[in-house]
Amino acid sequence: MADPTPNASSSSPGITKTMDAIMALCKRRGFVFQASEIYGGINGFWDYGPLGALLKKNLREAWWQDVVMNPAWGRKGPDGQPVSVVPLDTCIIQHPRVWEASGHIAGFNDPMQTCRQCKKLFRADHVWTMLEEAPWLVSLREAFSISADLTTIRFDPGLAQKWAGSKGKKLAPGMALVRKYTETMATLTKTAEAASGNLDVPTLLKLMATDPALAAQGLATPCPNCGGDLTEPRQFNLMFKTYVGAAATEDDVAYLRPETAQGIFVQFKNVVDTSRVRVPFGIAQTGKAFRNEVTPRNFTFRSREFEQMELEFFCHPSESMAWYEFWRSWRMEWWQSLGLAGDNLRLYDTPKKDLAHYAQAGSDVEYRFPFTAPGFGELEGVAHRGSFDLTQHEKTSGVKQDYFDTTRGEPLPNGQPKGERYIPHVIEPSAGLDRGVLAILCEAFTPDASRASRVYMKFHPRLAPIKAGVFPLVNKDGMPEVADKLAADLQRRVGRFGLVENDAKQSIGKRYARMDEAGCPFCVTIDGDTLTNQTVTLRHRDSGQQERVAIDQVAGLVADKVV
Amino acid sequence: MADPTPNASSSSPGITKTMDAIMALCKRRGFVFQASEIYGGINGFWDYGPLGALLKKNLREAWWQDVVMNPAWGRKGPDGQPVSVVPLDTCIIQHPRVWEASGHIAGFNDPMQTCRQCKKLFRADHVWTMLEEAPWLVSLREAFSISADLTTIRFDPGLAQKWAGSKGKKLAPGMALVRKYTETMATLTKTAEAASGNLDVPTLLKLMATDPALAAQGLATPCPNCGGDLTEPRQFNLMFKTYVGAAATEDDVAYLRPETAQGIFVQFKNVVDTSRVRVPFGIAQTGKAFRNEVTPRNFTFRSREFEQMELEFFCHPSESMAWYEFWRSWRMEWWQSLGLAGDNLRLYDTPKKDLAHYAQAGSDVEYRFPFTAPGFGELEGVAHRGSFDLTQHEKTSGVKQDYFDTTRGEPLPNGQPKGERYIPHVIEPSAGLDRGVLAILCEAFTPDASRASRVYMKFHPRLAPIKAGVFPLVNKDGMPEVADKLAADLQRRVGRFGLVENDAKQSIGKRYARMDEAGCPFCVTIDGDTLTNQTVTLRHRDSGQQERVAIDQVAGLVADKVV
Repeated sequence: MADPTPNASSSSPGITKTMDAIMALCKRRGFVFQASEIYGGINGFWDYGPLGALLKKNLREAWWQDVVMNPAWGRKGPDGQPVSVVPLDTCIIQHPRVWEASGHIAGFNDPMQTCRQCKKLFRADHVWTMLEEAPWLVSLREAFSISADLTTIRFDPGLAQKWAGSKGKKLAPGMALVRKYTETMATLTKTAEAASGNLDVPTLLKLMATDPALAAQGLATPCPNCGGDLTEPRQFNLMFKTYVGAAATEDDVAYLRPETAQGIFVQFKNVVDTSRVRVPFGIAQTGKAFRNEVTPRNFTFRSREFEQMELEFFCHPSESMAWYEFWRSWRMEWWQSLGLAGDNLRLYDTPKKDLAHYAQAGSDVEYRFPFTAPGFGELEGVAHRGSFDLTQHEKTSGVKQDYFDTTRGEPLPNGQPKGERYIPHVIEPSAGLDRGVLAILCEAFTPDASRASRVYMKFHPRLAPIKAGVFPLVNKDGMPEVADKLAADLQRRVGRFGLVENDAKQSIGKRYARMDEAGCPFCVTIDGDTLTNQTVTLRHRDSGQQERVAIDQVAGLVADKVV
Repeated sequence: MADPTPNASSSSPGITKTMDAIMALCKRRGFVFQASEIYGGINGFWDYGPLGALLKKNLREAWWQDVVMNPAWGRKGPDGQPVSVVPLDTCIIQHPRVWEASGHIAGFNDPMQTCRQCKKLFRADHVWTMLEEAPWLVSLREAFSISADLTTIRFDPGLAQKWAGSKGKKLAPGMALVRKYTETMATLTKTAEAASGNLDVPTLLKLMATDPALAAQGLATPCPNCGGDLTEPRQFNLMFKTYVGAAATEDDVAYLRPETAQGIFVQFKNVVDTSRVRVPFGIAQTGKAFRNEVTPRNFTFRSREFEQMELEFFCHPSESMAWYEFWRSWRMEWWQSLGLAGDNLRLYDTPKKDLAHYAQAGSDVEYRFPFTAPGFGELEGVAHRGSFDLTQHEKTSGVKQDYFDTTRGEPLPNGQPKGERYIPHVIEPSAGLDRGVLAILCEAFTPDASRASRVYMKFHPRLAPIKAGVFPLVNKDGMPEVADKLAADLQRRVGRFGLVENDAKQSIGKRYARMDEAGCPFCVTIDGDTLTNQTVTLRHRDSGQQERVAIDQVAGLVADKVV
């Protein structure tokens, strides 16, 4: 469908599509709230309000229907057979040895740096990106006239003195140049002289941040928060730790799962033994996972509590690349089918050198979020994990994880195949539900200065939290009764999938505006003509166009689009 | 529907409905697995296999549809208006002050006793129930001929000596009478003599468990595991503790929510401000909650990780008792509608003296589980919580939680009401999803010695994981093609809600038996006649009866029952 967004033609101020504007709408319309907001919030945790809870549920349900109940839309796999997937629902807290086997206890670490002055923690690989946005550095660049692409400058002691005593004092109280002006200035001047007055920018910043008394240990990276000196990076395990049982000794340590996948791997044998599944087949589940991010950022994109939708697809090693290709391309199609169809979505193949040591191939479905643009952020990873996980669990638990395939092996005298025993390879399409919701919110957000709402949310009808609005033009003359009947009809047809609003208050323009902001795809207005000729006005959200349709066809028209 | 279960008439061994038999079926058919089973399991955690995951999802979805999307089945509330409910989806980890306000940090404790010998922990209020099942006590009762209703016995030193040296040594190695025979026997004999040879049973057991050297501190309760001496009860907080962020100091402590309810209360204001809801209305959510149970027991009934389905319904204080009655009786009807319709379900009003100090009324929907019989276990609590929670959060956060009701207050000169400001009262129907699934598994389990499966699962069609089985009588003669077409038709109509099995393997009797064990309500067999007259055999699970129906009516017949 062509994007019908008209250019702003009225003189009223338009809304620009920025992350701030999207977040403001999310709060205002009850899509996303800060968790524990009345207590000042808790960094890295977000709650979904009524519309957000419905949007998230609709996306989870779309995944469940298309991956579990009718896998890959009924498409045949590379073996020519229907794709087979069974569901599972495993615990957030698993035995700690699960994470020993998976490598999460030894290897699930982020290098982390702490500020020696303000004590804040940062993920080492985020620090320089965060510095670019740090208020003190923005101010310093202005004062020194350092443009973003300039890497070397002439050091001007006069400007440095002035900045340290004014803006620097306020914005970078932890900076050595502010705290210990004389000593730090001396070192800076000396270093600049030795370099004929020229300093590259990172060195300049490090010299400003580092206490000269500690400079012998090496120059420190500056703190994005206060300009202070950061420690060297040290490893920090990202799993949330807890204790099971009342004793709370080191023997009772457990972890909140950092991914739902391992719950599937440790039940692989139970599923094979109880469910009559045959390789190739998949096991799927959705559920919460937790990562103790050092620097949660970018709204719900990098949060500490999030939800995953994971499929582990088990296949014979010889067919694994064909299945990898199958899932890789179908998963891209799936996200496209939900309205992420334009240039903001891409399928990115991980270069060989960036793959995990056990992975044979990997690709990401990525979305260009406002905060990653012009770059992209991951929505879903599709990984060829080989037999790594099952092999690790076999080694660690001592329980065999192999599969006896009666359809393979050389033919016996009776014509039947001899069978083959092997550990299946795994293709893992692993999607982030919260990231999916965020991408859909960002993609849907469509400024339109010609509308009363200034913006409308262009949700795919399948995902929209409100499926239809039913509006009697006036709250009298028998119109509310007709509206009630139509709303009940719509409720029966589509009420399982989303809300049907039946609203007689305020002007019709205000009611449309509210529905535009909530992303309701269809508004139906009952007016004077309805009472005589049984027709209503059906308004299409994206085009804003209205058409006259028979009232008894409305529920069918809407149901065809939203289910 | 009358229960058509025939009495066992064949000579083959019947299955008895015991918890062991139900658990065995749950494992065998992939309803419930021990979490992390290949690592020896983890006490208090259970995973759902493919059929269990579908059953659990169907129950959660039934609640969601009937509570959120079409509240109380569209029934009008006591105010004569449709019932209004909006959904929410809040985090498992909330700000720790949430739990300070709710009282969970100060008061969410279980008294706990530790065994001084084997170091095991027990919930104090569970110890005597567990003792009744302890192997050593069962053996001791036999040796001393103590029947269950006998409270006082004559102490026989000869029997005691014999038991301590044989069974006692093996089953109760921690018992003082076993570890320190001479001293303990002396104390026992002396006490019995002082009581003219008669001892009440609890005193006898305590004397046997307590080291005479420590008896001056009081007699200890015996350990259900090893017969050793338990410590006095001490308080243990049931919330799982974790740390947010890399520093992991006491300032970073957070807890996994012990209930989903508080996430709703702390977002009450945000929902009111963004969703155009008006009191009376409800906010609902489902999600995981965690309680660090000292003694997890009874399969999935008392586990450490579980899922809740909670509604917090906000109303004016003067209407709160009417809403309490409304929800109390409708929630009972709801559970009945899902097949828990017989004497095993009851609605139990909590006596005033047992209510929490803030509660004005409370009742439980309870099920008679095999492990509680003849008693009952809670499925759902309906509580009148007054304004307790919102008031607590207002006090603790300093953020006003009151509501301005424009429909109340004295009429102004213009005829409009003046409005009234108040903190709403809350009615809370709080259901356990895992307990619901367990009750449904127990209720459905129906031994029937006349069937090949010996047992069938009488799930309500709405909850059944497999909705229909399609079976070509033989795998040739065009029957598989007809089956494929019918299965595809069924998939389109009911595939969203459950599985459609299309199976041509093994005898038709074996296929029926497998479907009986999985609780599939409808089996459809395609035979030779189908090819000539377009009819099939439709088999009804509960009666085992078969009828001949036109093939093009099958999908409609099934859809009418299962959706």
